[in-house]
Parts: sequence; structure tokens; C-alpha cells
Amino acid sequence: MKLFGYWRSSASYRVRIALNLKGLTVDHVPVNLKDGVHREADYSTINPQKLVPTLELENGRRLTQSAAIIEYLDETFEGAPLLPEDPVQRADVRSVMAIIGGDTAPIQNLRVLKYLRGPLEQPEPVVQEWARHWIATGLESLEAMVAGQDSPFLFTDQPSAAECFLIPQFYNARRFGVDLSGLKRLRAVEANCQALTAFEAAKPENQADATAA
Amino acid sequence: MKLFGYWRSSASYRVRIALNLKGLTVDHVPVNLKDGVHREADYSTINPQKLVPTLELENGRRLTQSAAIIEYLDETFEGAPLLPEDPVQRADVRSVMAIIGGDTAPIQNLRVLKYLRGPLEQPEPVVQEWARHWIATGLESLEAMVAGQDSPFLFTDQPSAAECFLIPQFYNARRFGVDLSGLKRLRAVEANCQALTAFEAAKPENQADATAA
Repeated sequence: MKLFGYWRSSASYRVRIALNLKGLTVDHVPVNLKDGVHREADYSTINPQKLVPTLELENGRRLTQSAAIIEYLDETFEGAPLLPEDPVQRADVRSVMAIIGGDTAPIQNLRVLKYLRGPLEQPEPVVQEWARHWIATGLESLEAMVAGQDSPFLFTDQPSAAECFLIPQFYNARRFGVDLSGLKRLRAVEANCQALTAFEAAKPENQADATAA
Repeated sequence: MKLFGYWRSSASYRVRIALNLKGLTVDHVPVNLKDGVHREADYSTINPQKLVPTLELENGRRLTQSAAIIEYLDETFEGAPLLPEDPVQRADVRSVMAIIGGDTAPIQNLRVLKYLRGPLEQPEPVVQEWARHWIATGLESLEAMVAGQDSPFLFTDQPSAAECFLIPQFYNARRFGVDLSGLKRLRAVEANCQALTAFEAAKPENQADATAA
């Protein structure tokens, strides 16, 4: 399989973690978001949404959207389960995926910040505060959701698709300087994740297309 | 079961369609988003994210996020399947769910528009154009994704969770005056959905808490 992705894209980062947790290896095809390569005609035939990641299967069929790809990997391949068996616990994991993948990351991603800087002519401090506001809002609601639990990971003693979403969002939170001091439980889960090779190998700075910028 | 929702919330609308497609009835508890009732302490104990919908199960356990709730309903109850059986087709349906539920609706929802009007002091025409821009971007990429198909619904001859997401987004598109003329295939699917009682009964204007405003 081939993964079209970008080292610093949090959606690509999620899928890299999931692949590692499942013990799967893929060919990584870098799509340079910063240079706008993803909006050229070429990549739009691969992904009409012109976003990363895209997973290309062995037969050439392409899947888009990190949540859909991660569920596909979990339904199709052996290895560590990315979702629990119990339907209520599965709903909790998917709720985390949606809180981050729906209500947090898309509001602070590159194309939205570009729209704030471009058509809306917002100065950089306002743009940065926008990103911090939405990341903090998302992570604080997540902290409230899991504060009562005391498992090493969000819901159980194994990382799941929820952690595939959480860790890249923490990465973004640090990039934008979000105050994480109140997120005690999430930070403990993060530390447990970062101790695992699957998470370490998926880090943006450990990707072949990573640059210093 | 109880559904905490709001007549005009597209995420609540998605779950209402899904419940109808499964043939399930629930008690509807209106949470007035416009009056800010959802941010009062009371509702935040029900849903820490202070958003709708929340599904309360018979045993009092609460599930949040429309995508997670819809997957739960599909995994737990008999009735029309909301996701196909084939893993690749499931990925396509979930990709639609994420394109709308992640990359479209959250960027144009009430709290984001409030932030544009409030802290960013953007005039109303700019706010309206923001909403139109992101809705059009999402729906156009979706049209490109499914343009080659000719089934009555997005992927098959039955509505799925993808249509539970599509129809509320079309409702929002019309509210904001998005030009839908280029979305031929999506409009055909919409017409087929709207002919079904499950979609008709879920419409915002057919809810008990609907107001003229």
C-alpha cells in the first residue's frame, strides 16, 4: 500500500500511528502541502478533496480521510485492535476521533489559517490566537470527558484510534503554544503513548520529508 | 433512549435521520443553542463539549458526537444497515461522514461564526461568505468524489450514514445561499432522500422545538 501524506499534517500523522500499531508498512509518498503541490491537477485526481492523507490499496483503489482509513485498517488487518469490542466503548473512541478530527483540527488547519490571513486580512497574532482558541476548546472538553478514568490510555490499557487522533493534536497544540497545564489526564496519556515505538516512529520530525522549517 | 438536540443543528438532524432509517423512536429533549442554554452548567454535565447531540441510553449512559452515535446505532440495533458490509465501501461512506462532519460543518457552525462576529469583529457579509466558501468547498469535493457513480444514493441503492450527513449539509447550504447548480449528482441523491419518510420526518421544520426565526 501507498500513503500519500505530509510530515506535519496531523491527519497523516494519525494514520502513521495506526499503521505502526497494526504492524503494517507502506510506501510513503510525500505531498508537499506548504508548496501547494496538493492543489495541482495531479494530486486532485488522486484525492478530489486535495487534502492528505490518501491510502492507495494494492489494487490501486484509493481511500481518503484519516478516520475512514483507520477504521478500514482495523476492519481489514490483524494486529492490535484500534477500536474496543464493546459498542459503548467504541462510541467513546469514535467520539474522541470526532471531537479532534471534526471539531478541532479542521478549524485550525492550514487552509483555514490561510483564509484568515488572505481574504480576511487578519494579522498573524489574531491567526495564532484563533488556532490556540479552537485547540484549547477541543482539548479541554476532551479532558473533561476522560478526567474520571484512570487507565494508562484514554479508556483502556491499550492505545486505540482515539490516541491516534489525540497525539497529533497535542503536537499542533505545542506548535501554536497552547497552555496544556490544565490537561493533566491527557498529558499522562500522551506520556504513555510517546514511550511506545509506534508513536515515536510516526512523529513528524522522524519522517523522510521533514524539513527544518 | 433520549436525544438531546436542537431542531436546526445539522449534527442533531443527522442522528434524527439515522434513528428514522433504523426505525427507532426516542424522547427528544430540546437544547436551545441560540439562547446559549447548552453552555449553562446543567447541559455541560450531560455533554462536556457543550454541543448537541447527546444520546442517552436506557441505562443512563451518554454518547456524544453524531458520527459515533450513528455507528453505535448501526452496531447495536436491527433494521436497515447504515453502513455497507464491504470494508472499502464502508471507508467511502466514512469518508463522506468525515468530509462533511469534519472538514465542512464544524468550520461553518454557530460557535465559529460567533467567533468571527465577536472577537474578530467581521461584518455580516464576510461571515456569510465564510460559511458559503467552506460549504461549497466541501460539497464540490464530494461531488467530484461521487460524480462517476449512477446509483440512486451516493454509493448504492439504499441511503446510508453518508446520506445522514449529506442532507443536513444541503440544508445548511441553502440557508447560506450556496450555489448548488454544479452539484448535479448530489442534488439527484438529495431528491431521492427527500422522497423518503425517514428524511421528511427528520427535517428541522418538522421538529417540536422549531421556531419561525
